Amino acid sequence: MRRFATERAKRLLVGSFRSSPPLFSAPLCSSASAAAAAMDSAASPVALDTINQKVLKCEYAVRGEIVTHAQRLQQELQSKPGSHPFEEILYCNIGNPQSLGQQPITFFREVLALCDHPPLLDKSETHALFSADAIARAWQILDAIPGGATGAYSHSQGIKGLRDAIADGIAARDGFPANPDDIFLTDGASPAVHMMMQLLIRSEKDGILCPIPQYPLYSASIALHGGSLVPYYLNECTGWGLEISELQKQLEDARSKGITVRSLVVINPGNPTGQVLAEENQKEIVEFCKNERLVLLADEVYQENIYVDDKKFNSFKKIARSMGYGDEDLPLVSFQSVSKGYYGECGKRGGYMEVTGFSAEVREQIYKVASVNLCSNISGQILASLVMNPPKVGDESYESFNAEKTGILSSLARRAKALEDAFNGLEEVTCNKAEGAMYLFPRLHLPKKAIEAAKAVEAAPDAFYARCLLDATGIVVVPGSGFGQVPGTWHVRCTILPHEDKIPDIISRLEAFHEAFMEEFRD
Amino acid sequence: MRRFATERAKRLLVGSFRSSPPLFSAPLCSSASAAAAAMDSAASPVALDTINQKVLKCEYAVRGEIVTHAQRLQQELQSKPGSHPFEEILYCNIGNPQSLGQQPITFFREVLALCDHPPLLDKSETHALFSADAIARAWQILDAIPGGATGAYSHSQGIKGLRDAIADGIAARDGFPANPDDIFLTDGASPAVHMMMQLLIRSEKDGILCPIPQYPLYSASIALHGGSLVPYYLNECTGWGLEISELQKQLEDARSKGITVRSLVVINPGNPTGQVLAEENQKEIVEFCKNERLVLLADEVYQENIYVDDKKFNSFKKIARSMGYGDEDLPLVSFQSVSKGYYGECGKRGGYMEVTGFSAEVREQIYKVASVNLCSNISGQILASLVMNPPKVGDESYESFNAEKTGILSSLARRAKALEDAFNGLEEVTCNKAEGAMYLFPRLHLPKKAIEAAKAVEAAPDAFYARCLLDATGIVVVPGSGFGQVPGTWHVRCTILPHEDKIPDIISRLEAFHEAFMEEFRD
Repeated sequence: MRRFATERAKRLLVGSFRSSPPLFSAPLCSSASAAAAAMDSAASPVALDTINQKVLKCEYAVRGEIVTHAQRLQQELQSKPGSHPFEEILYCNIGNPQSLGQQPITFFREVLALCDHPPLLDKSETHALFSADAIARAWQILDAIPGGATGAYSHSQGIKGLRDAIADGIAARDGFPANPDDIFLTDGASPAVHMMMQLLIRSEKDGILCPIPQYPLYSASIALHGGSLVPYYLNECTGWGLEISELQKQLEDARSKGITVRSLVVINPGNPTGQVLAEENQKEIVEFCKNERLVLLADEVYQENIYVDDKKFNSFKKIARSMGYGDEDLPLVSFQSVSKGYYGECGKRGGYMEVTGFSAEVREQIYKVASVNLCSNISGQILASLVMNPPKVGDESYESFNAEKTGILSSLARRAKALEDAFNGLEEVTCNKAEGAMYLFPRLHLPKKAIEAAKAVEAAPDAFYARCLLDATGIVVVPGSGFGQVPGTWHVRCTILPHEDKIPDIISRLEAFHEAFMEEFRD
Repeated sequence: MRRFATERAKRLLVGSFRSSPPLFSAPLCSSASAAAAAMDSAASPVALDTINQKVLKCEYAVRGEIVTHAQRLQQELQSKPGSHPFEEILYCNIGNPQSLGQQPITFFREVLALCDHPPLLDKSETHALFSADAIARAWQILDAIPGGATGAYSHSQGIKGLRDAIADGIAARDGFPANPDDIFLTDGASPAVHMMMQLLIRSEKDGILCPIPQYPLYSASIALHGGSLVPYYLNECTGWGLEISELQKQLEDARSKGITVRSLVVINPGNPTGQVLAEENQKEIVEFCKNERLVLLADEVYQENIYVDDKKFNSFKKIARSMGYGDEDLPLVSFQSVSKGYYGECGKRGGYMEVTGFSAEVREQIYKVASVNLCSNISGQILASLVMNPPKVGDESYESFNAEKTGILSSLARRAKALEDAFNGLEEVTCNKAEGAMYLFPRLHLPKKAIEAAKAVEAAPDAFYARCLLDATGIVVVPGSGFGQVPGTWHVRCTILPHEDKIPDIISRLEAFHEAFMEEFRD
């Protein structure tokens, strides 16, 4: 393995890699048609320099060039089997569990199928195919939808009965009440984040405090809406700690430059960093937002993904309410998604935001923007109500549901630990624990020679590393530069999602590649 | 009936209507929580005057104040039956067929249910519950999805195999080839329209030519993206004719004001106007866009909704290709949706845009923006592939499918005609034929006294009429002012979607109301 990796690495790193296709000039869109490719942009009515420059500025590394290159390799593997030293591409670039073989939760899919085709509910055969509580839940959901019409546009915020169920789920989770009128159902969390950015950002003079590293949806959305990302650095040395002194420093710095900071984004559990915030830390964050009059945008989509016994997910709303703070004390938005957790239903595009602490007249504006898009998809709405109200002890499906759920979560915890240990075992790599979420974000202490080699091909050093890793092993990770990092440090983000059976092979390939890479470039 | 309507109208129009709640100060968002309502906006970190003013400017009448008021009345009917002179609210404000009882196409829902819960495909009972071709189609779709994972994020443009099916459907429709790489699957047509506006609009100096009247998604999206709507008026006297001389005049006028006109929006069949463009007219439009270097944004979501024998839907791409124009001649985007047609699957949020005539580098930018939102929902993607490739002659489901389809379309045609005749029978009302789409847009030649009464309550005259109609009959229509109209003319948009059984009653109520209204306000 080592020999293969070394040779492969040599060929790639020293040979073809420095020739075409150059690392950063390959088209982002592999699928541009031949006709489009042949067109002369300058002659077109829509030349590149005539489009909205905010679009041009926006970047989204999770589906950036490295993924496009991986798709190209995959096509090559299909058309010419054996053309690469690996048999398949292992997509560790994105939190997309079911693409890597994770099975959906049976109960959820039963309910969705019944709601998609309600005539099934009247057929006797259905009882042989579906669990009794899935049938009961489907009836309950159809009763909550006016006319049982799962094919109708709903209320702009989502079906009221489903929002009731979600509010109940939030209340049960937090021990504080939730109001269904505060829930806006959305096609995944991303459109919800865009809606808030659209509301808050007036110009580049408006700033949004974002963690660095961050999930690039935030930087992309801020760029698209023409605002300024005000970075605050998470402290890698303390397990990606979020320090109030850093928030304060960056806030003041931004203000001194004439930026009106409107909001603080917190991702908990962290993406790409995997840390789970301690309750005391969350209290300080709430206090900071209240004092500084910032909207707290809480990305809580990984709330079910906790892998360590000494940490627990607390929603920011629970924290704020436990401090005695209500609507009048701070505007707070919590984002949740059906794409993550143990359910991982990315393709269903379900999610919601819980919007509290805004005046009625500003809420009307949020409602209006939601109305322009009519509503989010109803299957996603149903699924959001299910993940916030899964089967309970005593329900027919409970045992099998719970077995599926704990099976997935305990496997994710084992995979996180195995990959963390593997990264920490690599020469000049350090990796914090993934306490939660779906990612590891190891730091690569790259030798100078590697940095120079990257420079020679006009690549960031971590992008260079990620590209070499992909070409040698088929493993797709995202360069840290796509998430932001302390200047001069280099990372990659790697999901913990490949099937557990494949983890040992991934680790062997990673180790062999890394050894060859270091052999090649050691100073 | 007349007596009731007169009394009701008198009480409403002369009495309570002029007192609270005033017509245009009721909150748009009926669901704002008590906590939010109690908050002082000025004291909040997010006061109304500190939000993005583009959001504030945006309007969307289809779910505007009249609908909020209708929702209030509906709640009153539920809590106090008999509190209004009608038993139910008839939502004619929005093209949402299944909310009014239209049943989904069985074949489509069978396939969706099977794809949602693929283990069904292995069970023998399934053959008793699903048609054989639905089962075969579900297998075919699952085979097209990597790993059969309907819960995974797909390619940012949508699943390749489904785009292949859509491209085949377009080619069969047009007689010209379509490229699956040109298809971007989206959550309904609205996000696709936003994507194009986001791409094209740089500032208020960029203009988009839009029909007046128009579907307010366009005005809302242009406002949200900070551009200028350049209106061109459809000619009501020639059945909402689209005249090139008008386009030319408005284009030149906009240019003389320093506006860079980037694009022409055409809605065919028309919304809210229901006209179907003639082939010769479409050729002129294509020529105009080519000569003036405009992006043709073709809203073709009503392509299946044609109700007259002498008109036929032609896609703009078919027209352009039949003129010998290819990618290099003009940028053209066609929007399609699963929400309209005979399927009316609004809640599924499926749709696509076919993007042709852009350079590879601009296409990469569209791909990037699509990637930031990861992908559209997979059920919507599947449904988009189904509506573009429905059962064919010889398939097991074909006969029942075709019966459902023609049943819906012929009923819609009868309803369109009945309502058109009814509007034309009203005093001082004229109404063009709905050749296609789902709406009538009758013109109200309102008496001066009515206009003055509207002024007294600070309402637009057509909004006043729509409010009176709602309060007297429970029928919800949208004032013409929400779509734009020639200044000094007044209209309402009324869908043709209520269940056919209800049409006679709706017409009686409408006639009685209108008579009472005219009685009250006749000059």
